[in-house]
Amino acid sequence: MRTFMLHPRLEADTVFVTDWALSRVLAMNDARYPWLILVPRRANAVEIHDLEHAERGVLMEEIARAGAALKSLTAAAKINIGALGNLVPQLHVHVVARNPGDAAWPGPVWGHGAAIAYAPTADFLRRVKAALGEGG
Amino acid sequence: MRTFMLHPRLEADTVFVTDWALSRVLAMNDARYPWLILVPRRANAVEIHDLEHAERGVLMEEIARAGAALKSLTAAAKINIGALGNLVPQLHVHVVARNPGDAAWPGPVWGHGAAIAYAPTADFLRRVKAALGEGG
Repeated sequence: MRTFMLHPRLEADTVFVTDWALSRVLAMNDARYPWLILVPRRANAVEIHDLEHAERGVLMEEIARAGAALKSLTAAAKINIGALGNLVPQLHVHVVARNPGDAAWPGPVWGHGAAIAYAPTADFLRRVKAALGEGG
Repeated sequence: MRTFMLHPRLEADTVFVTDWALSRVLAMNDARYPWLILVPRRANAVEIHDLEHAERGVLMEEIARAGAALKSLTAAAKINIGALGNLVPQLHVHVVARNPGDAAWPGPVWGHGAAIAYAPTADFLRRVKAALGEGG
């Protein structure tokens, strides 16, 4: 059993938010969309069906919690959920707040243009950490 | 409480496979990728967090079951899971078998070019119905 280590690409592209029961919660460093990534802290997980039954239940609740929080924080029109992993095999789930007129609307955000990094003082990062870190 | 009705866009783009405990199981009529869509039979669900806790647990197991079945049927390199709904608000979850060299690899399948309809005799549709309909 290997120890969980975050994939270097996820490490480079995100900001740490908090650890929940199963998942590390990251914010994608892309100011175009409010965008969280949940990474189950299981060393060998690639597909959702690689997790154990109980872990899948926890992951689903963490997805719902992240989606509801993003919707509440941003008043987004739609939450997009995705677990792709074509480039980064480590199991990770995107939770993205979408609105008509955003950079990729109505298409998916993945692979759409270059990220725009947040300023270090970005209000979204402060608010999302406060909202999601509470009661971790 | 309205009765569950499949969104006309999903009706037009897919082939019925089976009904599981929560979800209607559809096959996307696009021969470029082995592609299932799970639609929870709940009339007003738009976001995953609109479902009740127990329903989310069932949906997660149905996602895992569909993903494992597609992987087994097709020996795909990666399963992609997505719940977007930017164009079709009715909650639905895509489960897509992906391989290097497929039409959209490594990008997402959504919004990528036009679907290529299956021939009525398509082997994939026959096999997926047999695999997923059993023990429905």
